[in-house]
Amino acid sequence: MKFGVSLLGLVQQPLDEDLARRAEDVIAWVHEARDAGFHSVISGQHYLTHPFQELQPVPLLARLIPESGDMELFGTLIAPLHNPVDLAETWASLDVLSGGRMGLCFALGYRDEEYAAFGVDTSQRVRDFRDVIETVRALWTQDEVTATGRGFTIENATCTTRPVRKPHPPIWIAANADPAVKRAARWGLPWNINPHARYETIERQVGLYHDSAREAGIEPAELPLQREVFCAPTREEAIQTAGPHLARKYAAYDQWGQDKALPGEEEFAIPFAQLAQDRFILGDPDDCAREIAKYRKLGVDRLHMRMNWPGMALEPAVEALRLFGAEVAPRFADKGGGSGP
Amino acid sequence: MKFGVSLLGLVQQPLDEDLARRAEDVIAWVHEARDAGFHSVISGQHYLTHPFQELQPVPLLARLIPESGDMELFGTLIAPLHNPVDLAETWASLDVLSGGRMGLCFALGYRDEEYAAFGVDTSQRVRDFRDVIETVRALWTQDEVTATGRGFTIENATCTTRPVRKPHPPIWIAANADPAVKRAARWGLPWNINPHARYETIERQVGLYHDSAREAGIEPAELPLQREVFCAPTREEAIQTAGPHLARKYAAYDQWGQDKALPGEEEFAIPFAQLAQDRFILGDPDDCAREIAKYRKLGVDRLHMRMNWPGMALEPAVEALRLFGAEVAPRFADKGGGSGP
Repeated sequence: MKFGVSLLGLVQQPLDEDLARRAEDVIAWVHEARDAGFHSVISGQHYLTHPFQELQPVPLLARLIPESGDMELFGTLIAPLHNPVDLAETWASLDVLSGGRMGLCFALGYRDEEYAAFGVDTSQRVRDFRDVIETVRALWTQDEVTATGRGFTIENATCTTRPVRKPHPPIWIAANADPAVKRAARWGLPWNINPHARYETIERQVGLYHDSAREAGIEPAELPLQREVFCAPTREEAIQTAGPHLARKYAAYDQWGQDKALPGEEEFAIPFAQLAQDRFILGDPDDCAREIAKYRKLGVDRLHMRMNWPGMALEPAVEALRLFGAEVAPRFADKGGGSGP
Repeated sequence: MKFGVSLLGLVQQPLDEDLARRAEDVIAWVHEARDAGFHSVISGQHYLTHPFQELQPVPLLARLIPESGDMELFGTLIAPLHNPVDLAETWASLDVLSGGRMGLCFALGYRDEEYAAFGVDTSQRVRDFRDVIETVRALWTQDEVTATGRGFTIENATCTTRPVRKPHPPIWIAANADPAVKRAARWGLPWNINPHARYETIERQVGLYHDSAREAGIEPAELPLQREVFCAPTREEAIQTAGPHLARKYAAYDQWGQDKALPGEEEFAIPFAQLAQDRFILGDPDDCAREIAKYRKLGVDRLHMRMNWPGMALEPAVEALRLFGAEVAPRFADKGGGSGP
């Protein structure tokens, strides 16, 4: 099983934080993950992020290239907002600059403010999502591409700036809703399982994903998962340290409407113990390993962990990272899906 | 007078070059410029660059942050192609990551293929250009912004991710045609004088720029110039080394139609000596200093030099850079416009 860390809790900060100082924390955090043998980092994307400020993933990941050893660098982008020619050339440039270590995760997005700011008609966002992803893949793999979509028309266009990794860097699909999960399978792209849904939802949706892939005659390359994770010497300490930050983050998600993007009855405006149940991986090393084993059984072979949240200091997250690297990760070292830690 | 180097000749390469190896050359080149005391680097932008491949400026400049000491890092972007919210947050992120060293130069662009690939109606490109620049400035300086343009609608939007430099990083306007030069003056933004036009055209247009600025009651902050420059122990060596690369580059410009974007009768499909005359700064240190002094007299206080061109090896450019830093730059050290060389 491959383990990676999310940068979200450092790149997204309350407005009263000094973002430049927090950018130094991001670099220190990536050094810690690299030195602990983690496999990858992932950073997300939002625009107009009130009540947070947030570093955009393209400049951030480029800045991290010389800091990150041989780790993979993933960016989660809200695909419908972007132009596929810009995406293809920008991420090819990143891949060239990093020696082939980039990966992309495409999300559909859910915030009306972001769609309006990029001219996306919400009712057409799935079409835009598909057009962007198909066109980026075509630009990276074909010599002449003709395509049209919202805000772009290309005719026999050649993308001369190509990624190092062939046929192209990994492309994952972030998905919350059932139709989106099935779509990822039909496209033959790994579903990057979201950090928000409960275990029971994920278990059901992994079934859906595999069924849809089988129907399409596709064998997905990997099954990555994102989770909120905090590891401490005792379960009480883990909850005490991470709890307030997670509660604040999910209150903001509630305000943004992230829970409404999940299937079924999930909502975030509930007491913390209930929010955490079967959703967060919090506790001592045994607790963490037991939870992760449940996902491993579903076929999950990569886990990107969010171990810090907006406004939290770096040090307790570093302690949690080190403890996880020493006590939890090694238990999954031989259980498939790749190397270390 | 402040001197800087362009990255164009290294980031834009013929298709048979190894772009990853050339990216290492870019880093070596930036180290040379930094160590020689140059003040800034600038990198441009094109998409679908056949017969070249080219690194995009956002990931490139972010990668250069830790390599560039306290130099300023400028990116020239084709403004009408971009979304102002993305621009504002991406360049604010770069400014945070660089400790306030970023600068932007906005160009109108001229290639139909690029406009089509980004959904720009060529007849509306000046309107789009203006909307993007106005909205980026508003997002960087106002708490709530309401604006609409091609592909964006924002209402009482707050850009929470802000640049370090206040009120905002330098914004320059690249301009070829007379109306564009006058527009830069009216907006109160420095005109970044293009590298393609002849001296006599520039002399005339600097007059236009100052007249328009005076009419608008504006005192421009600086007057930057880009030029093709090659300095060698003798004029013959300079022409022998740089000539073939410059000739090839301008043949490609001719193919792209760059000369048609210039005012008057300028064209690039002419013999090299004629092409170079009053356009390129080529020669021994005395030749270079004499040419630069002409522009200094016009009020130019920053010069970004293109000293290498697609397909050229790094070493001769490094020799030219060192010679320029040692023999030419010091002659302008006390002549206004900032620190040396």
